Amino acid sequence: MPKIITLTTDFGLQDYYVSAMKAVMLGIAPDARFVDISHEIPSQDIMAGSWVLKNSAMLFPPNTVHVVVVDPGVGTDRDAIALQIDDQYFVGPDNGIFSILTEQKDYKAVRLTKQKYWGQEASNTFHGRDIFAPVAAHLSSGVDLEQLGEPVEELVTYRWAEPIADKDGLQGWVIHIDKFGNLITNLSASLIKEVIGDKSVKIYVGNTILDEIVNTFGSVLEGEPAAFIGSSGMLEIGINKGDAREMLGVQKGAQISLVLQK
Amino acid sequence: MPKIITLTTDFGLQDYYVSAMKAVMLGIAPDARFVDISHEIPSQDIMAGSWVLKNSAMLFPPNTVHVVVVDPGVGTDRDAIALQIDDQYFVGPDNGIFSILTEQKDYKAVRLTKQKYWGQEASNTFHGRDIFAPVAAHLSSGVDLEQLGEPVEELVTYRWAEPIADKDGLQGWVIHIDKFGNLITNLSASLIKEVIGDKSVKIYVGNTILDEIVNTFGSVLEGEPAAFIGSSGMLEIGINKGDAREMLGVQKGAQISLVLQK
Amino acid sequence: MPKIITLTTDFGLQDYYVSAMKAVMLGIAPDARFVDISHEIPSQDIMAGSWVLKNSAMLFPPNTVHVVVVDPGVGTDRDAIALQIDDQYFVGPDNGIFSILTEQKDYKAVRLTKQKYWGQEASNTFHGRDIFAPVAAHLSSGVDLEQLGEPVEELVTYRWAEPIADKDGLQGWVIHIDKFGNLITNLSASLIKEVIGDKSVKIYVGNTILDEIVNTFGSVLEGEPAAFIGSSGMLEIGINKGDAREMLGVQKGAQISLVLQK
Repeated sequence: MPKIITLTTDFGLQDYYVSAMKAVMLGIAPDARFVDISHEIPSQDIMAGSWVLKNSAMLFPPNTVHVVVVDPGVGTDRDAIALQIDDQYFVGPDNGIFSILTEQKDYKAVRLTKQKYWGQEASNTFHGRDIFAPVAAHLSSGVDLEQLGEPVEELVTYRWAEPIADKDGLQGWVIHIDKFGNLITNLSASLIKEVIGDKSVKIYVGNTILDEIVNTFGSVLEGEPAAFIGSSGMLEIGINKGDAREMLGVQKGAQISLVLQK
Repeated sequence: MPKIITLTTDFGLQDYYVSAMKAVMLGIAPDARFVDISHEIPSQDIMAGSWVLKNSAMLFPPNTVHVVVVDPGVGTDRDAIALQIDDQYFVGPDNGIFSILTEQKDYKAVRLTKQKYWGQEASNTFHGRDIFAPVAAHLSSGVDLEQLGEPVEELVTYRWAEPIADKDGLQGWVIHIDKFGNLITNLSASLIKEVIGDKSVKIYVGNTILDEIVNTFGSVLEGEPAAFIGSSGMLEIGINKGDAREMLGVQKGAQISLVLQK
Repeated sequence: MPKIITLTTDFGLQDYYVSAMKAVMLGIAPDARFVDISHEIPSQDIMAGSWVLKNSAMLFPPNTVHVVVVDPGVGTDRDAIALQIDDQYFVGPDNGIFSILTEQKDYKAVRLTKQKYWGQEASNTFHGRDIFAPVAAHLSSGVDLEQLGEPVEELVTYRWAEPIADKDGLQGWVIHIDKFGNLITNLSASLIKEVIGDKSVKIYVGNTILDEIVNTFGSVLEGEPAAFIGSSGMLEIGINKGDAREMLGVQKGAQISLVLQK
């Protein structure tokens, strides 16, 4: 059975940080198989790390261990934790990066206090190598979650802005912009279905007004913007063969409104 | 025997797209071993994807499956296909990205129509996760190409500009610029041998004129430009310890001429 | 037992160079497991490659083979070498990139002269694919170092600037800047302990003066600079939740001084 360990960090790939973590894990779990989820999370951007994790971690085979290091508070008194959510395991800092997952699912969590599962000497600045990687490798090798430390009842929560539904329609925000420049919002297909149903709406984003939600960006002419439900199940704004961030001049955090037409 | 699956995409590594594909494949083919060919193909650049594929795919061990997602037409009526070329397998959109390989070799191709080999529910925008990845994993696990769908006779062709040979010499184009700024042309060593032989030529590129084809960029002084046959078997222009794109001010698509000297 | 081969190159990931090396290695060593240390070493930057290697290579399990291709002299008369240092193996150009390791440890080295362990035909510009990758794969498959070529006594040395200690304190240089903008110096914790001990110092870097060495960047207020011993054991200057390169305007090579206070 595959012993998969995934890595999600903001370390980039030009430094030794990621490979040092892998070296340490191979020393403890020689059969570990690594999948890099991303090392290009913007530096210390917990929101971006959450988003990537939410859309990939739960797809992995049972007993995959996900080590996550987006950790602006390293070396301060933030806790280090391990979690189980369904049949997936997670190791990382308790800074809210997992709350997008724990809000929707039951979980079991421990604070990492058992130093016997850490590296020999923990630095103040690189818990990825010195704490999270060794703990993930032990977990992957069969150590029980409970052995890693004390149970934690409440985890730090990252507060995502919630969509607002009222008599005029729905209002949300751009929570992520992908490599293609697609604007991904916090308006889910199910919320839109519930609030808007099959009534007609106009979509306002930046200075642009769209007349309908279409199937995909390929449904509109080249260079034209389209609103569609993307692969994450959220409303996205994209440009057919173009970059919506550039062409619409919209940034992360921008407001998006679905306005019911009378 | 290794079950190797390679990935070539324009997804970048900051999003969840690549890891979602790997998670899906591991669910179907738990022993799959991934090799990332590139995820840094410029967005929707079929020509760049072709070039990378041409120079690496056929080097892999027999029965490697190459999943390729550079897919500007996702969600439209472009076909999804799987191919066998020699002992290598390919899965991706029928948009011409494979034609650089199929022009030179016999191949067997099917249109992906058997939904039992797809993911549970195909989105309109992410066939990488929902169609290509599951099909590649099934292929890697031993499903026959023929089972995946209906045979296709003719594939979409990407039209590369052809070199022109005349009494004055050879004219070609810069088809790729690599990370070092080397200008890679569509003039192959064999074509140059055939048309130019051992006659002397001057090489014109941008505002620069070179007097000969040398062995390697290390054959000229530091900071000087050199024309040489690169590792892909094509004529390249590089600068010894420098960046030819920057220093010669030349872009992809620029003309390059080998002019016979009398 | 895992047959691990790591790769450290300046090839980037947008080209076929890295995957061609892996394809060649899998042909020779089908069970090889790859760990990418980095492919984002700045082009031809031997110093940056050395730094990354120093901080990760020796952490890997015994018998790991590290193939290293930062090779501005490819195709010239620089030697190709393989080395053993403790229980780790290295393959790459003899251009000083390994000297940061060989200065501190005993080693055994050979010049790669046995063409039977190379690829079929070595190009002038891509020894990564044609010499280093096949040699690394053979080494990983059990070929003895001695079989690969002739012993070499003296390797090319890369001259790192040495710190200067005098009655006023210690003077060093920024030798690396990481993805977060942390300035990493050539002043080691042990040297600082030896020269400075527990006397008080001021730290001068660019136009900034710091009053003490703290535990971690998290020890100072957000947006403030901190001097601390980083995860590599060297003095670093970082900004709590900020980028020291940008905020202090300091580049690689900048001087840093620890000045004893009377």
